[in-house]
Amino acid sequence: MADEKMVTAITSMEDDFAKWYTDVVKKADLCDYASVRGCMILRPYGYAIWELIQHNLDRMFKETGHENVYMPMFIPESLLQKEKDHVEGFAPEVAWVTHGGSEKLQERLCVRPTSETLFCDHYKNIIHSYRDLPKLYNQWCSVCRWEKTTRPFLRTLEFLWQEGHTAHATAEEAEEETIRMLNVYAKFLNDYLAIPVVKGRKTEKEKFAGAKATYTIESLMHDGKALQAGTSHNFGDGFARAFGIQYTDKNNKLQYVHQTSWGMTTRLIGALIMVHSDNNGLVLPPRIAPVQVMIIPVMQKKAGVIEAADKLRERLSKVCRVKTDASDKSPGWKYAEQEMKGIPLRVEIGPRDIENNQCVMVTRLGRVKTVVSLDNIETAVCEALEKMQKDLYEKALAHKNSHTFDAVDMAEFEKQLNENPGFINAMWCGDEECENKIKEMTGATSRCMPFEQRHISDVCVCCGKPAKTMVTWGKAY
Amino acid sequence: MADEKMVTAITSMEDDFAKWYTDVVKKADLCDYASVRGCMILRPYGYAIWELIQHNLDRMFKETGHENVYMPMFIPESLLQKEKDHVEGFAPEVAWVTHGGSEKLQERLCVRPTSETLFCDHYKNIIHSYRDLPKLYNQWCSVCRWEKTTRPFLRTLEFLWQEGHTAHATAEEAEEETIRMLNVYAKFLNDYLAIPVVKGRKTEKEKFAGAKATYTIESLMHDGKALQAGTSHNFGDGFARAFGIQYTDKNNKLQYVHQTSWGMTTRLIGALIMVHSDNNGLVLPPRIAPVQVMIIPVMQKKAGVIEAADKLRERLSKVCRVKTDASDKSPGWKYAEQEMKGIPLRVEIGPRDIENNQCVMVTRLGRVKTVVSLDNIETAVCEALEKMQKDLYEKALAHKNSHTFDAVDMAEFEKQLNENPGFINAMWCGDEECENKIKEMTGATSRCMPFEQRHISDVCVCCGKPAKTMVTWGKAY
Repeated sequence: MADEKMVTAITSMEDDFAKWYTDVVKKADLCDYASVRGCMILRPYGYAIWELIQHNLDRMFKETGHENVYMPMFIPESLLQKEKDHVEGFAPEVAWVTHGGSEKLQERLCVRPTSETLFCDHYKNIIHSYRDLPKLYNQWCSVCRWEKTTRPFLRTLEFLWQEGHTAHATAEEAEEETIRMLNVYAKFLNDYLAIPVVKGRKTEKEKFAGAKATYTIESLMHDGKALQAGTSHNFGDGFARAFGIQYTDKNNKLQYVHQTSWGMTTRLIGALIMVHSDNNGLVLPPRIAPVQVMIIPVMQKKAGVIEAADKLRERLSKVCRVKTDASDKSPGWKYAEQEMKGIPLRVEIGPRDIENNQCVMVTRLGRVKTVVSLDNIETAVCEALEKMQKDLYEKALAHKNSHTFDAVDMAEFEKQLNENPGFINAMWCGDEECENKIKEMTGATSRCMPFEQRHISDVCVCCGKPAKTMVTWGKAY
Repeated sequence: MADEKMVTAITSMEDDFAKWYTDVVKKADLCDYASVRGCMILRPYGYAIWELIQHNLDRMFKETGHENVYMPMFIPESLLQKEKDHVEGFAPEVAWVTHGGSEKLQERLCVRPTSETLFCDHYKNIIHSYRDLPKLYNQWCSVCRWEKTTRPFLRTLEFLWQEGHTAHATAEEAEEETIRMLNVYAKFLNDYLAIPVVKGRKTEKEKFAGAKATYTIESLMHDGKALQAGTSHNFGDGFARAFGIQYTDKNNKLQYVHQTSWGMTTRLIGALIMVHSDNNGLVLPPRIAPVQVMIIPVMQKKAGVIEAADKLRERLSKVCRVKTDASDKSPGWKYAEQEMKGIPLRVEIGPRDIENNQCVMVTRLGRVKTVVSLDNIETAVCEALEKMQKDLYEKALAHKNSHTFDAVDMAEFEKQLNENPGFINAMWCGDEECENKIKEMTGATSRCMPFEQRHISDVCVCCGKPAKTMVTWGKAY
């Protein structure tokens, strides 16, 4: 049977998580491989998810006073080199343009891996007085990082993202902005992607090249691995000094600006897959699902069925994103396809339903089947979608909680990570040496120093010296 | 006076059209130059116009059944070379990536100048049966063409655009799609940008590299020069044969697909400037204006003025895009700034207005001042915006009509073009030689063979041989 084949073609996640992930990506038509190594093609269904992410995030950015701009995709080598730490972090992984047409360029240009240097160069030209501050800019674009190994959505040579870049009069305002945008990110993951996160600060070792402080939201995948879902950086006045971005304050004194940047990428789609999906395919939170309801006419050749399905679609289109599948595929194939694509609700309507003024509603999560009267189908559908949004969050939260552990020594740390991988909370002395040693021993990296600190023990889990802070550790994507 | 300075700083278009254009671009804060030659920075106000263009076009694309995707920004050299005419047309003007990080690449990658080859490569993988057709894809992205001379919005090394790429079962369907999208473009320019166009087909010499036929919409600027505003190409099965894109038809026979592509770019913003704007700055059609109404409180320090302005903004925000300028700049400065930025309506409200339950409405076009009762201010504002949208179109149409001429011989052709430049309609024998000669003699190129043909004379305007078709000629941007 065709529909059976479609379903059994997915590797189960218990058998091979990596293969299951790739299967979902391909079978749900999210993306395809391109002829350039490590690049991907975002297919209509995958891109539609990105459009919903973009649409909602963009609204949240605008509500917090940000404006969109567009910077060039090329950065001259000399500009990239202006901030020492930044160039050291990025130069090894950029693509270099050396020729324009048939001519060799006098100076190489890199394809932007991130745009701090371009924004700084622009800010230097447009910021003069305290009246010009703050500048709250954001950009939607693609960036390029020459990665050795790649995986769809998680790590690709080119990816789509947004990068916020702001300039402020004072250090306090820059810090406020950094935290504000981290909270916007966390709220977006909570409310739209139904993904709970750990908020915290990166260690010195893990922070962004050129930043004073990097904050992060970390999420936990099905397989117990951590995924960094978004970061927000406070640059202090480091870039401003390197680029000479100064303004005249109210007392007519020259001051350096304080800057931030923050970004989220198409890797969020990878997170959606690895947090919510199952062995039948993709599972999408309703708020981010391109199609929220798929109507499937049953015995569609019987008189009146297609008409009833169309009428139902017409009604539902006023309250949700709905489609009808009236193709000549078998019902079983259609059900399997709806599940594979993670469409939250399936609504079946056939001759007997029409007779009884009803339809059958089946949820993607748990396959709960309900017979619903057509009288108030709009309310029933909206309630079911809201419930699924909430249930998905609760399920993900329960998984994160049941996979977060405390460890007081390395034996416990290693045992936990091997037996039931997840987040490990453990105390840390603050030395990079211990961070390196833990990574060597266990493969886990410091994900962040969470804002919600607890006193687990007095000493560092690694060296036994007095502990300074609690760190959340985990193996990461 | 500060406001005077702002206004007089624009060169008048009669004195120097090119400088006037650049002044508007800079003074209206649309864009800034970047540190890479020929690249530009789209500033918030310029990008907001692009977002409105994008939003409305995207809706029109989706209404005609198109889906968005995202292809990689790099094209391997071997892929670019697959279609002979295409590579000849584009290879001289692409940027080449030769290194990734510190390693030299085995094969050079070009930064996409357009993405036909990538779409073909993808279509080859995903099209198998007649059931897979049509594919109606579109992509929003930036592309790069290594131009020698550049001008903001009109010609830059990198620009933003959309590129539609479709695949169809038959030649007829492909031709229908090509014309459908040309009509969508013409409608968008008419309805949103208030720009009338000439629709037609490009000559063999002017068509797109690799196309069977290129259709175009041509618009006329203030200075009588033509601007190609959008093109739609029918590829026939040329790319399909070069890339091997075949499907099995209903009779189980292998067939090549027929393809189209169509694109519009940020150059539309250049057209907006050169069609509508004046010596006081930008003029924007209301439907594409990021801010449609600017409320300016008069004597704003008096009790109740700011409150009244806020209340008014609150009311108007339900029917249009509105802002209040309550800064400490002088009213004169604010007026000049509103005019410079092309905000369609200014609404002034001061103590005396509040007393009389009224406000003063001033239109950007013609500076028409009306005292309006606050009772039905929403209606008055909407009507004024609609009127301005219509008036701008009528004005542009009148200009186009009064700058379109017939010529029966080269003497008339040259005289007209020198004395009152614009579109010249003249008959053509169909020989490329005459096209070249006309360009040499006059600087004018064939803009298109308009769909609306007229019989102006029996013979070619250039060589005197029997004429085949009427061509619209013009000097072009």
